[in-house]
Amino acid sequence: MLAELPFIADAQTLMRRGKLRPIDLVEHCLGRIHQFEDQIHAWVMVDEEGARAEARRLGKMLDDGQEPVGPLHGIPIGIKDIIDVAGWPTLCGSKLRAGHVASKDAFVVATLREAGAIFLGKTVTTEWASFDPPPTRNPWNLNHTPGGSSSGSAAAVAMEMCMAALGTQTGGSIIRPASYCGVVGIKANHGYIPLDGIFPFSMHLDHVGPIARTIEDVYEIFSRCVFSHGSNNIGGMVPHRIPERLFVLRGGLVEQADASTRKNFEEVISKLSHRFEILPLEVPGWFAEIPVLHRRIMAVEAAEVHRDAFERNAESFAPRIRSLINEGRHCTTLDYAYALRRQREFRELASQELHKLFADNCVPILLMPSTPTAAPNLDTTGDPVFNSLWSFLGQFAVTIPSGFTSTGLPLGLQLTYGGWTGENALIPVANEIEKCLNLSLRPPLLRASKSEQTP
Amino acid sequence: MLAELPFIADAQTLMRRGKLRPIDLVEHCLGRIHQFEDQIHAWVMVDEEGARAEARRLGKMLDDGQEPVGPLHGIPIGIKDIIDVAGWPTLCGSKLRAGHVASKDAFVVATLREAGAIFLGKTVTTEWASFDPPPTRNPWNLNHTPGGSSSGSAAAVAMEMCMAALGTQTGGSIIRPASYCGVVGIKANHGYIPLDGIFPFSMHLDHVGPIARTIEDVYEIFSRCVFSHGSNNIGGMVPHRIPERLFVLRGGLVEQADASTRKNFEEVISKLSHRFEILPLEVPGWFAEIPVLHRRIMAVEAAEVHRDAFERNAESFAPRIRSLINEGRHCTTLDYAYALRRQREFRELASQELHKLFADNCVPILLMPSTPTAAPNLDTTGDPVFNSLWSFLGQFAVTIPSGFTSTGLPLGLQLTYGGWTGENALIPVANEIEKCLNLSLRPPLLRASKSEQTP
Repeated sequence: MLAELPFIADAQTLMRRGKLRPIDLVEHCLGRIHQFEDQIHAWVMVDEEGARAEARRLGKMLDDGQEPVGPLHGIPIGIKDIIDVAGWPTLCGSKLRAGHVASKDAFVVATLREAGAIFLGKTVTTEWASFDPPPTRNPWNLNHTPGGSSSGSAAAVAMEMCMAALGTQTGGSIIRPASYCGVVGIKANHGYIPLDGIFPFSMHLDHVGPIARTIEDVYEIFSRCVFSHGSNNIGGMVPHRIPERLFVLRGGLVEQADASTRKNFEEVISKLSHRFEILPLEVPGWFAEIPVLHRRIMAVEAAEVHRDAFERNAESFAPRIRSLINEGRHCTTLDYAYALRRQREFRELASQELHKLFADNCVPILLMPSTPTAAPNLDTTGDPVFNSLWSFLGQFAVTIPSGFTSTGLPLGLQLTYGGWTGENALIPVANEIEKCLNLSLRPPLLRASKSEQTP
Repeated sequence: MLAELPFIADAQTLMRRGKLRPIDLVEHCLGRIHQFEDQIHAWVMVDEEGARAEARRLGKMLDDGQEPVGPLHGIPIGIKDIIDVAGWPTLCGSKLRAGHVASKDAFVVATLREAGAIFLGKTVTTEWASFDPPPTRNPWNLNHTPGGSSSGSAAAVAMEMCMAALGTQTGGSIIRPASYCGVVGIKANHGYIPLDGIFPFSMHLDHVGPIARTIEDVYEIFSRCVFSHGSNNIGGMVPHRIPERLFVLRGGLVEQADASTRKNFEEVISKLSHRFEILPLEVPGWFAEIPVLHRRIMAVEAAEVHRDAFERNAESFAPRIRSLINEGRHCTTLDYAYALRRQREFRELASQELHKLFADNCVPILLMPSTPTAAPNLDTTGDPVFNSLWSFLGQFAVTIPSGFTSTGLPLGLQLTYGGWTGENALIPVANEIEKCLNLSLRPPLLRASKSEQTP
């Protein structure tokens, strides 16, 4: 096993120079899985032999002087278990899916495969990507939730069990677990990355996106999900002038953050104020309506997706998703249609409001805590309210680690952006902030572990 | 009055050379309105003095050697009366809107205003842009419908009462009236042109687009609707290699065309086969499900938009929109959510199917008749089934005149395209086909009229 798992860009350089082979990365990740999976429960299945065979094939190509398959040649990745990987089951955290096998790759999986990524296995999702707590534990404290629904993806990345993982978000299912686990996540604009081959939760709210350990790593994966052909990729971070001004969201829902979260947030803002001009931006009054409308759309669309199975046997659903589906089944047609129309209007309103901030060559990047609290205990997957705002509005959002509570649980900073190509504006800023904060982010469990050579 | 109304590109050239003034165009259009409005009923209101004042202001700018305001400097346009023009009423064809005055321009109106267009007035829409026949008559035969719901826009353009007009389409409300009136219309991809400031009918189906007399004219307007700032416009037709291969849709719903429409369509295809390779494309089986799903979404969303007014007084709605709203009010939540999910899936399926046709540098442009029959009598606004397919799938569609029935009613050819930037692929082909067909398209009423100088 390697002493530490390198970051993606470093691994790419080392592999190009013949100093690292894909099999080394795969064996390191499998070693971490062997060491910690009993405690973390991040994986539904791991295809050890498949991953090793693929790593050897990709390694031999490099040994033979062939070109890499693509920019992610030999990078081991985990896939949330509501996303199809050809030949593997997609169990969606539900016993109703027993025996399922995916016939083809989801769009995002196909693009990563084309780029040369190695798939290690499927990561734990909450049942139907909803709110019922999964078996997965938080790597920073096993008595706390890793968040959900992309529970396994966030925990596996934090524990070096893979270099990155795919997650999905309908409320806060990428940003929240990434923040709780001290890693980085991207949820792009609604519709930005195609969802085919991903089990739906709520079509007007669903997003897919990557989780990794740094902005550079997560962007490396993200940029391959967006473009379907390796040849179109420019690769690496998009060069972009970094704006000098950032907006801090104040008031309204944001006030739900607890003392520990606020303290960390204010410290971060204070640090950033040496590098950026920081302006307050009052949360618009209509934001207060979003949680109810978001919940209504999610409930109805989940009820529709699961209609037949639910009518056959409602008891086969876990309590929280069952209750959500029941809620959706009791919503009237016109109340649902109203929520959809308001969502469209709010998206328009948000882009108009944000458009005003474009003045003076300043781009509207907003900062707020990623979650109202650090990871709570195992009875819940935590509160997605800070994230579902942006799922509802369909805006680009990123979380990066911002510090720790006094008990050592990670906290996150959420950056959002109102325009369409958020990565150009937001990723370089997130990268700059990550450098400013300069946090050390290996969970104690990992720091305490001895490096062992796998046989 | 001018002998004939010039086309937009010619008018632009003549104005630049000082051989034509904006007031000449406005007076010509107002003259045609004076001559024919009693028979055609295309207008809800005409702001004669406002249009003249604006024409004089724009004319003086040119006389003074100033730059044109934008590429549509001095071009007189009509606006469908569900689209807001600041300071004018938006009556939506309903008595419930009496006294309404728009406080600001719709997005599309603002872009046309910035480009220098002159607004003559508001054109007749069916009540709430639905199916109840309007007072407007077909310029080619006053006993026939001009189609709906953009009835006034299509009829006014055909009668030289304006150089172009804006329409909207939820089922077939741009393509159908344009085809029935022997003019040209564009319905771009769903979401391509922002809808703010347009009274909604059905958010998952609504589109806005221009109607004019030729592809070149309609594209001139279209390209200004898409880009909000004159300075970003390259202007004129986008240069693009014209594909050598076109697909003709066969079977399924397309077989609903009557004998006269089929005869014309086969003649057109035969003419085009000298210029293009023409391949048949079987209508996929799942197209048959579209009309029911389309109707369901439209009914529910109309019911939601009109919820309060309808609950207060259903009798204040005309019979067809009332019946549609009732239908929407009786649809279950999950049946509506299902229709939305199927729409999303069908859009994906369509783009996958069409993607296969991209082989050999060929772009997937599909041809079919614009309507199943020529304009029927005044009891109806005609059948939108050939158009609502593309409203449902959200694909780019264009209609151009293709010939006449034996009784002299216009017929149209509908071109559709599966990709996002339909104008690059489709507009040059439509332009080429328009040249191939070389039809003379002035309604008899107009040909018979004497040119008269307005006072």
